[in-house]
Amino acid sequence: MNISRIRERIPALKTCTHLDCAAVSPFFQDTLTEMETFLHKRAEKASFDLDPWLQMLEESRQAVARFVNASSDEIAFMLNTTEGLNTVAHIIPWKKGDSMVTSDLEFPSNSLPWFNLQNKGVVVRQVQNVEGELLLEDIEKAIDDTTRLVSLSFVQFGNGFKCDLKEISKLCKEHNAFLCSDIIQGLGAVPVDVQEMGIDFFATASYKWLMGPLGVGFFFIRKEHLEEMEPPYLGWFSLRDYENFNRPGLNEVELSDTARKFETGGKSFALIGGLKKSLDIFSEIGVETIEKRVLDLSQYVIDNCDAAQTPSDRKKRAGIVNIKHPKPEKVVEALRKQNILVSARMNGIRVSTHFWNTEEDIDDLMHGINAWKK
Amino acid sequence: MNISRIRERIPALKTCTHLDCAAVSPFFQDTLTEMETFLHKRAEKASFDLDPWLQMLEESRQAVARFVNASSDEIAFMLNTTEGLNTVAHIIPWKKGDSMVTSDLEFPSNSLPWFNLQNKGVVVRQVQNVEGELLLEDIEKAIDDTTRLVSLSFVQFGNGFKCDLKEISKLCKEHNAFLCSDIIQGLGAVPVDVQEMGIDFFATASYKWLMGPLGVGFFFIRKEHLEEMEPPYLGWFSLRDYENFNRPGLNEVELSDTARKFETGGKSFALIGGLKKSLDIFSEIGVETIEKRVLDLSQYVIDNCDAAQTPSDRKKRAGIVNIKHPKPEKVVEALRKQNILVSARMNGIRVSTHFWNTEEDIDDLMHGINAWKK
Repeated sequence: MNISRIRERIPALKTCTHLDCAAVSPFFQDTLTEMETFLHKRAEKASFDLDPWLQMLEESRQAVARFVNASSDEIAFMLNTTEGLNTVAHIIPWKKGDSMVTSDLEFPSNSLPWFNLQNKGVVVRQVQNVEGELLLEDIEKAIDDTTRLVSLSFVQFGNGFKCDLKEISKLCKEHNAFLCSDIIQGLGAVPVDVQEMGIDFFATASYKWLMGPLGVGFFFIRKEHLEEMEPPYLGWFSLRDYENFNRPGLNEVELSDTARKFETGGKSFALIGGLKKSLDIFSEIGVETIEKRVLDLSQYVIDNCDAAQTPSDRKKRAGIVNIKHPKPEKVVEALRKQNILVSARMNGIRVSTHFWNTEEDIDDLMHGINAWKK
Repeated sequence: MNISRIRERIPALKTCTHLDCAAVSPFFQDTLTEMETFLHKRAEKASFDLDPWLQMLEESRQAVARFVNASSDEIAFMLNTTEGLNTVAHIIPWKKGDSMVTSDLEFPSNSLPWFNLQNKGVVVRQVQNVEGELLLEDIEKAIDDTTRLVSLSFVQFGNGFKCDLKEISKLCKEHNAFLCSDIIQGLGAVPVDVQEMGIDFFATASYKWLMGPLGVGFFFIRKEHLEEMEPPYLGWFSLRDYENFNRPGLNEVELSDTARKFETGGKSFALIGGLKKSLDIFSEIGVETIEKRVLDLSQYVIDNCDAAQTPSDRKKRAGIVNIKHPKPEKVVEALRKQNILVSARMNGIRVSTHFWNTEEDIDDLMHGINAWKK
């Protein structure tokens, strides 16, 4: 992997030190070009090119599936991560007294759909973090035979703690509970293998570690649940025979037997092609290569600051390191004026290291943080 | 209105005769440029520019609201029309034995969410068209005191029949039923005024008569329903205090008191700005001017073919005229090879006339249809 060559392909890196993929990533030039080409074609040809669009959509679906070791039948495109999580909240046939397990570290989108279930009599158990970590023993204690669902982010947005989904899935299976994960802060930085992890559902979107556009999310549902689980939202994309617009007023319908039944209607085709282009680049480089580099760089952040709020154990983190700070908003604002991009989250400075970052980027950041101190 | 000047602003018209806005419209150059500029900025700056993005979002929301005479508090952005319709299916507190009224002319997305309600014991009444029209007296007969919702497309996708929402809303009010409309085949071609029409909800998207991108939809909910109706899907955009990411694991939450509570998470900001640009152009020209021109041109189609399946009454149509034909797919395919764009729908050739079309466009089409005959 030739880092400087890769950096040349990312226009933003000419003008900024970008350590903020946990917020929004920069684009590869190829990703940008792909999306622009689509928009131009529509502007110039202006026709409803459904066949090539659907072909592109299916190619993107296959690229997503390969990237997470799923079947393309198990992937549905959605607007964002939130839609996938809410879908899970709706498709489980909850009974009063059922419980679900989540944690106190989750981003609002991975809390709101579950707390909303309390209206249906579902008990929400929130595993409390211990110094920023969710302990397997605490998760185990929270799961019992009333538990229908465990939903935990793969990597926590605030402090970057990565949970062991494989071990958690074993606990779930013992109690016949489903396991759902918001994987947005992991996918693209560290490998995701739905088979190995044993998860039932995931939700994510493309604009963070995958370096794709905002407005494209995707949802995984394990094949064995497809038949029993009915989509909360239905549209023309849900139909088996979805290319046939000549059935107005339809009463009896046949839904797709794939995850496409969870899709609704028109999509941002222009943007979905951009995601595919990014995935191609990631696959070319290799996810293991990317993971090693991401973890080496996040280790470098931990080693070079004195207040990391992120586990130093490589198994318990991905690309996020949170540096505790009394005034994170102020520092982040000052750094931004120097074109060093990081975010303020949870009483600290959240630093994201992607595989194309360098130790110099981190040195510049540390210099900026230390300069602010003085 | 100088038509040739306007046509110069739409790149596609250099190479095709576009009579297909009921499928997918061409773009104004300005709309394309707006979206490209956003993507470029993100590629170059690569930062999470939440403040300017949200400002752009709110400006777009206001532009949408002005365009339909709503308040911006009554508008939620969604992926597509389908999401809005499904939202309505979920937010009404159905009781077993309740009924809803729709028609046999609807596009699948405006049938599936309702037929799905049959699982909850809701009775779906499908008003049957009479020679392509839905008669007010038939709609009146279908509504009774069990009726909670009437959902009819403003303009039907197949034959272009436009219903009188104002009169239907009066019938609804007599029985305390809500009125929902899929307005995608009307908005942009003919005026929509939610106050005058008295509708409770509408769903639509931007890529047909509004000449915006695929992947941007929006939903209207009348202000008086905002408090009682709870969103089926919740995300960080649903929160009153949605710019604050520092509340992990939140239990007690305060939702927005506007329609924003129906939004979920990340959006395609790149595309939403494109919609706004289109709306600016439409508003500049004026919706009444546009309507007159659209209706004059669709009249010209009716007058110049011998098998229009669309009412000739100007009050009962918008920009769609369907020409009955024994082999619509074949003709549409042959026309496409001549760069004349129309669609095959419901045993006919669906012709869409927008305000920038000309009588010459229609002459070319008729020539093409007649040539195929021979």
